[in-house]
Amino acid sequence: MTSKTQPGNYFEDFTVGQQIVHATPRTVTDGDLALYTALYGSRFALTSGASFAESLGMPGMPVDPLLVFHIVFGKTVPDISLNAVANLGYAGGRFGVPVYPGDTLAATSEVIGLKQNSNGKTGVVYVRTTGTNERGEMVVEYVRWVMVNKRDQDAPAPETVIPDLPGAVAIDDLQVPFEVTGDYDTTLAGSPFVWDDYEVGEKIDHVDGMTIEEAEHMIATRLYQNTAKVHFNQHVEGQGRNGRRLIYGGNIISLARALSFNGLANAQYVAAINGGSHTNPTFAGNTIYAWSEVLDRLEIPGRTDVGALRLRTVATKDRSGADFPLKGDDGKYDPSVVLDFDYTVLMPRR
Amino acid sequence: MTSKTQPGNYFEDFTVGQQIVHATPRTVTDGDLALYTALYGSRFALTSGASFAESLGMPGMPVDPLLVFHIVFGKTVPDISLNAVANLGYAGGRFGVPVYPGDTLAATSEVIGLKQNSNGKTGVVYVRTTGTNERGEMVVEYVRWVMVNKRDQDAPAPETVIPDLPGAVAIDDLQVPFEVTGDYDTTLAGSPFVWDDYEVGEKIDHVDGMTIEEAEHMIATRLYQNTAKVHFNQHVEGQGRNGRRLIYGGNIISLARALSFNGLANAQYVAAINGGSHTNPTFAGNTIYAWSEVLDRLEIPGRTDVGALRLRTVATKDRSGADFPLKGDDGKYDPSVVLDFDYTVLMPRR
Amino acid sequence: MTSKTQPGNYFEDFTVGQQIVHATPRTVTDGDLALYTALYGSRFALTSGASFAESLGMPGMPVDPLLVFHIVFGKTVPDISLNAVANLGYAGGRFGVPVYPGDTLAATSEVIGLKQNSNGKTGVVYVRTTGTNERGEMVVEYVRWVMVNKRDQDAPAPETVIPDLPGAVAIDDLQVPFEVTGDYDTTLAGSPFVWDDYEVGEKIDHVDGMTIEEAEHMIATRLYQNTAKVHFNQHVEGQGRNGRRLIYGGNIISLARALSFNGLANAQYVAAINGGSHTNPTFAGNTIYAWSEVLDRLEIPGRTDVGALRLRTVATKDRSGADFPLKGDDGKYDPSVVLDFDYTVLMPRR
Repeated sequence: MTSKTQPGNYFEDFTVGQQIVHATPRTVTDGDLALYTALYGSRFALTSGASFAESLGMPGMPVDPLLVFHIVFGKTVPDISLNAVANLGYAGGRFGVPVYPGDTLAATSEVIGLKQNSNGKTGVVYVRTTGTNERGEMVVEYVRWVMVNKRDQDAPAPETVIPDLPGAVAIDDLQVPFEVTGDYDTTLAGSPFVWDDYEVGEKIDHVDGMTIEEAEHMIATRLYQNTAKVHFNQHVEGQGRNGRRLIYGGNIISLARALSFNGLANAQYVAAINGGSHTNPTFAGNTIYAWSEVLDRLEIPGRTDVGALRLRTVATKDRSGADFPLKGDDGKYDPSVVLDFDYTVLMPRR
Repeated sequence: MTSKTQPGNYFEDFTVGQQIVHATPRTVTDGDLALYTALYGSRFALTSGASFAESLGMPGMPVDPLLVFHIVFGKTVPDISLNAVANLGYAGGRFGVPVYPGDTLAATSEVIGLKQNSNGKTGVVYVRTTGTNERGEMVVEYVRWVMVNKRDQDAPAPETVIPDLPGAVAIDDLQVPFEVTGDYDTTLAGSPFVWDDYEVGEKIDHVDGMTIEEAEHMIATRLYQNTAKVHFNQHVEGQGRNGRRLIYGGNIISLARALSFNGLANAQYVAAINGGSHTNPTFAGNTIYAWSEVLDRLEIPGRTDVGALRLRTVATKDRSGADFPLKGDDGKYDPSVVLDFDYTVLMPRR
Repeated sequence: MTSKTQPGNYFEDFTVGQQIVHATPRTVTDGDLALYTALYGSRFALTSGASFAESLGMPGMPVDPLLVFHIVFGKTVPDISLNAVANLGYAGGRFGVPVYPGDTLAATSEVIGLKQNSNGKTGVVYVRTTGTNERGEMVVEYVRWVMVNKRDQDAPAPETVIPDLPGAVAIDDLQVPFEVTGDYDTTLAGSPFVWDDYEVGEKIDHVDGMTIEEAEHMIATRLYQNTAKVHFNQHVEGQGRNGRRLIYGGNIISLARALSFNGLANAQYVAAINGGSHTNPTFAGNTIYAWSEVLDRLEIPGRTDVGALRLRTVATKDRSGADFPLKGDDGKYDPSVVLDFDYTVLMPRR
């Protein structure tokens, strides 16, 4: 009689080159889209209205790329990060073919790097995760690295392999799933400001704040079938360091993106996640604000209808983004800063 | 470099005759219907089961008219009421062609009246809002008036224009989207009492109470893409007059309507919103009750299968509706009364 | 003018042989499935991904049988248990044809037993409830018995009729809606352990715990259109014995089932509910754990691809299932035990 439960993988269970097929293919439906709207209040026209999406040459409302990311990410948790100490970062996130309601998402990961920490108790695991639809087409891929416990501290350290981490996703690697053929309706989109109007270095305070409740972040995180224990179990977390359940960082990404509508309404589609860090934990009761900086304004080869903006969006807790809080004089993140997110959006041109 | 965020309109930004096209067309799906049921517990058979709707000659389950109203209303908030001090009332609400899952809703408003207040700091803006589907057909229209701040108190007052506010929607203006051709199944509908059984002046206590949580009203209000700040930001509201987030009044309307099933189960469809006031604020933790009075029983021209009831439904907080609380001897609303709602429902006849 | 509200039935309103048609046929949609995932975090592959379901010969993702049960159960509450003192038990629960999004569920009950209690104030009502789809096909049937108040204590006692309560559902009575024709993908299903690997008497701790919030259990219970007052009204319950709203027991069943994925991932489908008791109440703030025991391992006549496991799954509150808490030396349930559930699942064979 063998133990039937899944203990998750420990540091010594990973080998470079290992391929991991994650469980539970997940069909995304209109129900998920409605919940996503209800949980974050996103208002971008492309992912909100079928008629708007059709006017941009898509067959219907695409699933928000961040929802795709969360579902794929959730699948990897039982295999990659169930015994993780910390989510260290991600990079090179790129969205592939758009996802529509009815598509079934699955995920696989390849271990691309390993480095045991000097304390001998933990190590860093680097994986490249690929999400696919039911036709095997790539819908998202990204690299992430996590610090994972060793099961046995006496287990020998593996050879250190640190992968070349991708920088910002190259403009040639972006998928542009929509096109502007006629007049683009900035009124229906919610802002007169299009790609041409943004300047590199420009900072935008997104003004509004949103308080998060326990029920909300747990409903969202379960929707993504993300099983990380710290989000759900007050009986255990109440005894822990924080005394509270931790909010899944992806909730903050989606909330910041929804808030960014006020100032970036024409950023219709997230095409890439260049990198990101969850710089401080968030808990129920926190009010999340966001501000953004335009890091780059990029022409897309062969396209004059749509351009790309590389953005940094910073989310804060219980502090307005009006003065663009980021780091202190010591170079460390301000305690109010909970997310520093580097990503690329697609925006119609004039 | 221009400010990219939307400050909302101030009193002096409005002119009589102005047409405002609101942003973010929104496709309503089965996901929205499930959330609506989950948030309010509505049990009316016509909007709950496709087979029941088909037995009344509809092609499938229609979207609850109040959900249509909330979505259209939500679209108007960034343009009309972002700088509002108070929602003063609405009138003349009329539902047009029924909405089905898959339809995309959009909204426009016309400014039909303006009146600066004597304090010179605020003014009342009257708008007529029209919601349409993707074919441009009217799905709902209504008048509302809000008190809005002036940006600059020295700005000159506009000419006062007070529109003729519609009274109850005329019986000839009601759309009746279903018909009873064979036997109407009162058992499946949940009550033996049909149009013929109600008397003008009759009062009905709907008995049950429902407590509202923060997560619930915020999930609902975001589902409607309603961005009014007071509902979402505890960090700011905690410092304000109430110390708490305010619940969107529409949530109370929908909750009262759901509670009214117990006593009005055959009121299958809301055809008109004649008027309504949110007479006291509601907050998370409040338990909502409701009672109704039959204001009028109306025959629909040319129809013997379906009649109309004009109802007043009153919602209370933390007080049962058993003794029909409404106003005190001073003519003011009882502090427990949070909604006084005048609307017209369609009900099969015997 | 008659009272229009439904008082629910009292003990003396029931007669053996009585047929009750419950109100509000309910169309199940993709929206309900998304909410079910979001509320419990279920990860079983068959009910999560259309492509997986299709690989097992089904036309698409079936609706989780427990969701079907909750919806049918919810319909019976206004007629059977609105005046109930206690839900005493259920037995003989059997799932019929699978339900798919778009199906409309309705419910009828037959009174099959009555026994007045010796105190003369209450009695036990036994009903057999049948849920059907819009084609009249049975989707679930079960027996439950509840203790119901008498309206008039002087009303004469009816003849006592105690029905033969079904034991475990017979293996010949199970519907097996899927088949394994090619290779069954245990990796996508989330566990290498199939029917052959489980032993009678084997106990499995499902490890994880999930804390329940007020908003979550109310959203779920309203989704099922279950109107039992104790779940919703803090204004009244705050004055009652518990001082709090009670969580609908079905939420605990679904949560325990979702937690059981860790250890029973291949238990793709619940085919029968043999019996179950809610042994202690649960409230918001409780953290639910679960463990299971294999009661029986059964071959299905004529099938070598799929077998059945009869399971006992026990849910606990605020106590881990690691040491399999159940009863004390006095034979009474441990205060932490909230559910003792006996059911039969279908699992692929090697």
